[in-house]
Amino acid sequence: MTVSAVALDVMSGDKGPKPCILAALQAVKRYDDLHIVLVGHQCVIQSVLKNYTSTHGSLFHRLTIEHADHVTDMSAPPLQIIRSGQESSLWKAVQLVQQKKVCACVSAGNTGAYIAAGRCLLGMLPHIERPAIISQMPGMNRCAFMLDLGANTTCSDYQLYQFAVLGSVYLAEVHGIRHPSIGLLNIGRELNKGKQMIKNAYSLIKKNPNLNFSRYVEGHELCTGVVDLIVCDGFSGNVALKSIEGTARYIRRALVANKKRLIEKILFYMAMPWLRYRLTKLDPGLYNGAALLGLQGILIKSHGAARTEHLLCAIEQARKEIKHNTLKHITANISTAFLAEN
Amino acid sequence: MTVSAVALDVMSGDKGPKPCILAALQAVKRYDDLHIVLVGHQCVIQSVLKNYTSTHGSLFHRLTIEHADHVTDMSAPPLQIIRSGQESSLWKAVQLVQQKKVCACVSAGNTGAYIAAGRCLLGMLPHIERPAIISQMPGMNRCAFMLDLGANTTCSDYQLYQFAVLGSVYLAEVHGIRHPSIGLLNIGRELNKGKQMIKNAYSLIKKNPNLNFSRYVEGHELCTGVVDLIVCDGFSGNVALKSIEGTARYIRRALVANKKRLIEKILFYMAMPWLRYRLTKLDPGLYNGAALLGLQGILIKSHGAARTEHLLCAIEQARKEIKHNTLKHITANISTAFLAEN
Repeated sequence: MTVSAVALDVMSGDKGPKPCILAALQAVKRYDDLHIVLVGHQCVIQSVLKNYTSTHGSLFHRLTIEHADHVTDMSAPPLQIIRSGQESSLWKAVQLVQQKKVCACVSAGNTGAYIAAGRCLLGMLPHIERPAIISQMPGMNRCAFMLDLGANTTCSDYQLYQFAVLGSVYLAEVHGIRHPSIGLLNIGRELNKGKQMIKNAYSLIKKNPNLNFSRYVEGHELCTGVVDLIVCDGFSGNVALKSIEGTARYIRRALVANKKRLIEKILFYMAMPWLRYRLTKLDPGLYNGAALLGLQGILIKSHGAARTEHLLCAIEQARKEIKHNTLKHITANISTAFLAEN
Repeated sequence: MTVSAVALDVMSGDKGPKPCILAALQAVKRYDDLHIVLVGHQCVIQSVLKNYTSTHGSLFHRLTIEHADHVTDMSAPPLQIIRSGQESSLWKAVQLVQQKKVCACVSAGNTGAYIAAGRCLLGMLPHIERPAIISQMPGMNRCAFMLDLGANTTCSDYQLYQFAVLGSVYLAEVHGIRHPSIGLLNIGRELNKGKQMIKNAYSLIKKNPNLNFSRYVEGHELCTGVVDLIVCDGFSGNVALKSIEGTARYIRRALVANKKRLIEKILFYMAMPWLRYRLTKLDPGLYNGAALLGLQGILIKSHGAARTEHLLCAIEQARKEIKHNTLKHITANISTAFLAEN
């Protein structure tokens, strides 16, 4: 096994296998230590790869094909994959992690099914009841990490507390942020604001001396880096993340749209070099690739509609997690972090 | 009573009475039919007004001062205002609506206290259990309205359904959008996605033939205008709205920040006229002024941290609701809209 072997589910994204395979080619070109297992229909993958024989043929030895007959439907309920989806590319990609044939897996498929496969094949870390999706938010200087971004539609106060511990260990051990400051997503900064469940989670986090709890944070603070880690339930987290991405996309469009008058056109063309330079950095797709924490394996979730350059980010994220030895570090430290609660 | 008489709670905003009073002066200057009752500490208001005698003295006859001894604390629990906050500017401003001395009220104060005062003094419309905050989202062409934006931290499936009816009547009767299309905020578009509570609300809305239900909408669609009305619980709605505002602010800053190299400076100065022209339109403060629907009176909620120009928008919103006869139209049509459910 190469140092960084990644399984890539090429079938489950909204845009089909081509952008996935292209991203894989760019990734192995960029990183010498990377080996990618393309999981999907063999004939489809081979027919796409054929077009790149002349340009990328020399990299093909670092790609392997793992055949899978089916594709998991985006609307399939999670249980369906456990019952009947075991020939799907998504299941097989996670299975490669279970069999230790690869160190991590990337999929742009059905989140619920991905989590179900992860829980079923890899199992949970000790003390953690549910997986949570974590990713870095955009930000000017300090960028916060946020979890859960959509693995759980509802969760209990104790599970929110578990996310705080999990995220805190992840940031300390993997990203080198010592004693990361933690914020709980709420709709006001005052202590009496928000749902009872969040107030209970607040007390639980406060009680653990291993955690550096800061305060409640609100939606407008997610990109300001006021804390290192933002903890929330998966519903609110997903709504917030997608609202941020949608707004970024809307503003990018609004900045360049509708230049009817001549003066508008002139001003716009003068502004274009600067806009091109700055807006590229503000593409939310560049934050693509969220880790599924809490499982006994590294699973990276890409956006369903991700394009090649965004899928490349997700593969890079998988490689980073492998290099950082994420799983080993979290496993070694999670029990100690929880011990303090008693 | 002048046609459009508005009570303005000048004490409760984060920035103190000055921006409120300035906004009131600008509003009466802009609209001949407007009369504003400034609710707050008489001496404070008079001392601010004194500075504008020379420039705005001719408008003073369309301002009245209603003295209030106290200010409602931003962290005070809603019940506190009912028990002991009746001398506050917030309570007195709502009281003026109850006494029909004004047609609408604007406050930048504590949302929970404002709602409590509204429920207590004005009462709810028939069929509606809880008030909901509604406002227009930013958008390129068609702008969606969204409710609830933070009046309720939790709500039931039936209350979500009530919000759909309420919002639908409001859009049809006040904003002239015939048979507005409705979306339910969720974390996926597929029918099996999301919380059970949302799936139940989906069935309830679908069953009422008076409602034009479209589909689930996700966070990234809030500024795209795919539907006319987005329905959600107050927690998710508040998180989404503030995420949108925070992102807009972050991008505005990111677009103009850190120009270290000479070439960056040149490109930026070339882009500045266009940026100034376009970014002004993207200021989330210009959407300030959300209506509190479901009450038997017109209450407008401004952002706590609103500046003068944003408070002016909130006053304009109050005037618009009065001109549109919002309350009369909603009251006349809400029962018919609910009748269809049986």
